[in-house]
Amino acid sequence: MLMNTHEARLEALRKELVARDLAGFVVPISDEHMSEYVGAYAQRLAWLTGFGGSAGTAVVLQDKAAIFVDGRYTLQVREQVDGRFWSYESVPATSVAKWLGEHAPEGSRIGYDAWLHGKPWVTAVSKALEARKARLEPVSANPVDSIWADQPAPSDAPAEVHPTEFAGQSSEAKRAAVAEWLTANKLDAAAITALDSIAWLLNLRGTDVDRTPVALSFVIAHADGTAELFIAEDKVTPQLRQHLGNAVTVRPREAFVPQLQALSGKRVAVDPERSVQAVFEVLGTAGADVVEQRDPTVLPRACKNPVEQAGHRAAQARDAAAMCRFLHWLSVAAPKGGESELSAAEKLRSLRAESPMLRDLSFDTISAAGPNAASPHYRVDEESNLPILPGSIYLVDSGGQYPDGTTDITRTVWIGPKEPSAEHKDRYTRVLKGHIAISRAVFPKGTAGSQLDTLARQHLWQAGLDYAHGTGHGVGSYLSVHEGPQRIAKSAGGQAGTDQELLPGMILSNEPGYYKTGHYGIRIENLELVEPRPIEGAEGEYFGFETLTHVPIDRTLVDTALLSRDELRWWDEYHARVLEIVGPQLDGEALAWLKQQCAPLGRG
Amino acid sequence: MLMNTHEARLEALRKELVARDLAGFVVPISDEHMSEYVGAYAQRLAWLTGFGGSAGTAVVLQDKAAIFVDGRYTLQVREQVDGRFWSYESVPATSVAKWLGEHAPEGSRIGYDAWLHGKPWVTAVSKALEARKARLEPVSANPVDSIWADQPAPSDAPAEVHPTEFAGQSSEAKRAAVAEWLTANKLDAAAITALDSIAWLLNLRGTDVDRTPVALSFVIAHADGTAELFIAEDKVTPQLRQHLGNAVTVRPREAFVPQLQALSGKRVAVDPERSVQAVFEVLGTAGADVVEQRDPTVLPRACKNPVEQAGHRAAQARDAAAMCRFLHWLSVAAPKGGESELSAAEKLRSLRAESPMLRDLSFDTISAAGPNAASPHYRVDEESNLPILPGSIYLVDSGGQYPDGTTDITRTVWIGPKEPSAEHKDRYTRVLKGHIAISRAVFPKGTAGSQLDTLARQHLWQAGLDYAHGTGHGVGSYLSVHEGPQRIAKSAGGQAGTDQELLPGMILSNEPGYYKTGHYGIRIENLELVEPRPIEGAEGEYFGFETLTHVPIDRTLVDTALLSRDELRWWDEYHARVLEIVGPQLDGEALAWLKQQCAPLGRG
Repeated sequence: MLMNTHEARLEALRKELVARDLAGFVVPISDEHMSEYVGAYAQRLAWLTGFGGSAGTAVVLQDKAAIFVDGRYTLQVREQVDGRFWSYESVPATSVAKWLGEHAPEGSRIGYDAWLHGKPWVTAVSKALEARKARLEPVSANPVDSIWADQPAPSDAPAEVHPTEFAGQSSEAKRAAVAEWLTANKLDAAAITALDSIAWLLNLRGTDVDRTPVALSFVIAHADGTAELFIAEDKVTPQLRQHLGNAVTVRPREAFVPQLQALSGKRVAVDPERSVQAVFEVLGTAGADVVEQRDPTVLPRACKNPVEQAGHRAAQARDAAAMCRFLHWLSVAAPKGGESELSAAEKLRSLRAESPMLRDLSFDTISAAGPNAASPHYRVDEESNLPILPGSIYLVDSGGQYPDGTTDITRTVWIGPKEPSAEHKDRYTRVLKGHIAISRAVFPKGTAGSQLDTLARQHLWQAGLDYAHGTGHGVGSYLSVHEGPQRIAKSAGGQAGTDQELLPGMILSNEPGYYKTGHYGIRIENLELVEPRPIEGAEGEYFGFETLTHVPIDRTLVDTALLSRDELRWWDEYHARVLEIVGPQLDGEALAWLKQQCAPLGRG
Repeated sequence: MLMNTHEARLEALRKELVARDLAGFVVPISDEHMSEYVGAYAQRLAWLTGFGGSAGTAVVLQDKAAIFVDGRYTLQVREQVDGRFWSYESVPATSVAKWLGEHAPEGSRIGYDAWLHGKPWVTAVSKALEARKARLEPVSANPVDSIWADQPAPSDAPAEVHPTEFAGQSSEAKRAAVAEWLTANKLDAAAITALDSIAWLLNLRGTDVDRTPVALSFVIAHADGTAELFIAEDKVTPQLRQHLGNAVTVRPREAFVPQLQALSGKRVAVDPERSVQAVFEVLGTAGADVVEQRDPTVLPRACKNPVEQAGHRAAQARDAAAMCRFLHWLSVAAPKGGESELSAAEKLRSLRAESPMLRDLSFDTISAAGPNAASPHYRVDEESNLPILPGSIYLVDSGGQYPDGTTDITRTVWIGPKEPSAEHKDRYTRVLKGHIAISRAVFPKGTAGSQLDTLARQHLWQAGLDYAHGTGHGVGSYLSVHEGPQRIAKSAGGQAGTDQELLPGMILSNEPGYYKTGHYGIRIENLELVEPRPIEGAEGEYFGFETLTHVPIDRTLVDTALLSRDELRWWDEYHARVLEIVGPQLDGEALAWLKQQCAPLGRG
């Protein structure tokens, strides 16, 4: 009997491990930059197992193999990965560390690629292996790459200049600030390996990764304001080279390790949350003094400057017009039947693409009808595609990448002509009340996102309901749609928030939801900009949110009797502003529809 | 020129230090049990410096002496402690560790009493002293005691049985649960040194410390369910001995150290937050395996059993009647003028004392008129005493110790006949809205108090206002009025909350406030009991609060236009319940007053 493709690959990997005298090997979805989304060349887990999700890890031993995924992928992993060869493991119920602590052969060597794992992971797994007297050992080359004959090469797309017109601050000024920080902390250099950090610091962008406009590269920033950029040479256009200037030395990507080694004897900052273990090992072995510090670009990147803020407003207004055209189209087309999750997502993409400013979507559109909407991270494909049925709830979470800003918006709409049930309206209105509470929040300087989270959940909690994801994440400026360090989330647990205080210029999504498994899902998401809030008689510094997203919220699903005066006022003011911003971009029936949607809500 | 008393004492201490070859010594307000309130024998700081506050530390070197207090005592320390001999230091701006790191003589030995300091403090100070190549050394006997000729002896009051009728669970059952916990954690014994832990575990009470009904003692609990109680023998009445039974060995207090030493080779649990450094040192030196664990009585003590819950309801109803008689008296007497903070506090005490069940106040009454109310921790004395003026705000925070429960209530009232200003009403109503939000909160199992805190502050924040203390603390059952581990507070900062999830049976104060320095203060405090909250269609386990305190909230200060329908409903339902509970205990004019206060609020 012939082996199928993935069985053969697993067998080949086991042979390779024998040849290397390794009892096992760990295969994550990760790259050298700890990216959230990775290029095709780094999709080793999918190649090995067939698993198509965005998060997961495999462990291969000679007599066992296991694949670890979270609750989002419980079903998918069983469909895509062959249970005869792989055991399915659920995180956080178990973990690679725990599993290896139980299954690694006594006294064995388990291999891992130090360019694909963070330091905390290595520490945890090494500790777990002690129980088996086994060791975790970095490999010199990834054994999957050795057997993956047609592994794609990393993208060779050219990197692009991100002009100051959008960035709002020159790379020189940014590097000067990093240099000042290095000097203040008695550091000689910082190794910066996160792709969005590099893109921000050098005002460059790229197309090496889907949905996030970054270029594969590394940076060493020095205390004198100079930097070394390690990047494939064919990515560097003459324009980019000129933009980078003399203070930035461009070197081949392969020179990163030797240049790290050249930092022997220096004090070098590395961010353990954003740099892989290999960076620590190379520096440590070379005799550098490695100082664990948060990547110095993280906080200034999170706090958008006035130019970036203006860019976001422009991008959001543009994106809102596409969303409004889409929702108008949907309100006409869907009640007739015949539309599907895929057709709707394609329609939305094409409407966004009407703007010459659109560079990419900011993530794969979540276009979810009926029960599919109950999976917060649902991703439509040919197999999962459901029709959008009249008399049901449809949820669409999407966004665009524009050079002046990154968008992310969710709307949940009722597909007529039938009326929604009282339960639909009750749940929707509770989610809406949470959304409004975040939007209206005023808070003193020093407040962290975790302190606001309960405002979004309180009305669901009153009904004994909740949602199992965070309330808000940071968003980049023509960068990652998920950007740290700020977050609005519960203070503990799997989706925990951070203790990062919210600061003016930070952008956060505001996206409470409610999900009834097997039935429907609701989420309402706008982006909010933290702004100073002058208040007469205020004792201390207070902040609030400027809402950046301007698209009508479905009124069919609102039970106005559940709204307070303040909430009704918020609704009417919000929609008046939507009309003001989007109205001039629409005409004809779409404009008429928008005016209807933006009329005062009133009671009853 | 004659030396004054405290100058002479400082000089005597310095001589004593020279005799012991110590360069300095640290004098905290603390006892062997890390108690919040300490007995007269342990008031070493007051004896040495004249400082009368409840929290502070002194450091004495040969050529310098400093006293460290927090913001509450900034003024008081300057009035009571002689600035010619002592420098005033503010925590948290500085700390003993930081100060010693700067001022300790190079290479010196600084003494401390290991029976008065926690392990984290010792670690921090030792580390700070490294900069001076100095060492922190435990003394064999406290040098203050050596020179304090008329130091009071520790209280010799008899300890008392706390009957199962109030405790709801026998000591035997509690010890069995501790034994089970020890066994599950592969521990042989637990050293329990917090006085309220001991009182709870053995169902005993005492009068050794003001305001908290505990008896000076130590306990070693063993994995077989037996325990050793270390206590002055004259405290042990025949009733108590009989109550303790055969499984509890009573030993003299001095036997604690030898019996700790006898645990050589055993695995012993000690709580670093609740046991002094000496316990760790004795066990460590004896060769015991010290395992840092939270005191196993803390969580079961916090979760009141049904008998304790019923006791609290009874105690609160009784206490509420006294409070209502007081507020009625105040409403008649104060507008005429002539009353003061002291006269009001005395009136309230005498009304509480009318109940034969009252054992003590649960803390020194905060009776605060006008600007004094702006200090949240204000304590009235002859010097600070202010008249209660007609046309002003008066705040009273007080409580009683009853064998069935401990109470803690704050009411802020307007003293007529003049009307309060719009600002008074606005601030008061914002505090009230926060109080109602906590009272009405519903939350899923797993929620910590820090996740509820913002509900209490949100309406003040909207006006750019806040309060610089936590929102709620735990309360004991005829034990400490401040009891851990649960807390409602901000998730970070000096008044930080804990990540302890709220569990049914826990009692928390609900006490938002607002303080305008130099003018007035507002606080509204009830006690709330965490209860399971059945909700139709709930997804998961949800909890809410049963309010235990039933005393009218001043309606003169409410701006009803600021209240939502839900808040008005809460007010009316709350006051209907107050009338139901307290009405039958009152008669005549007091009852008539109560009925007025409990009439529906309505709008306008």
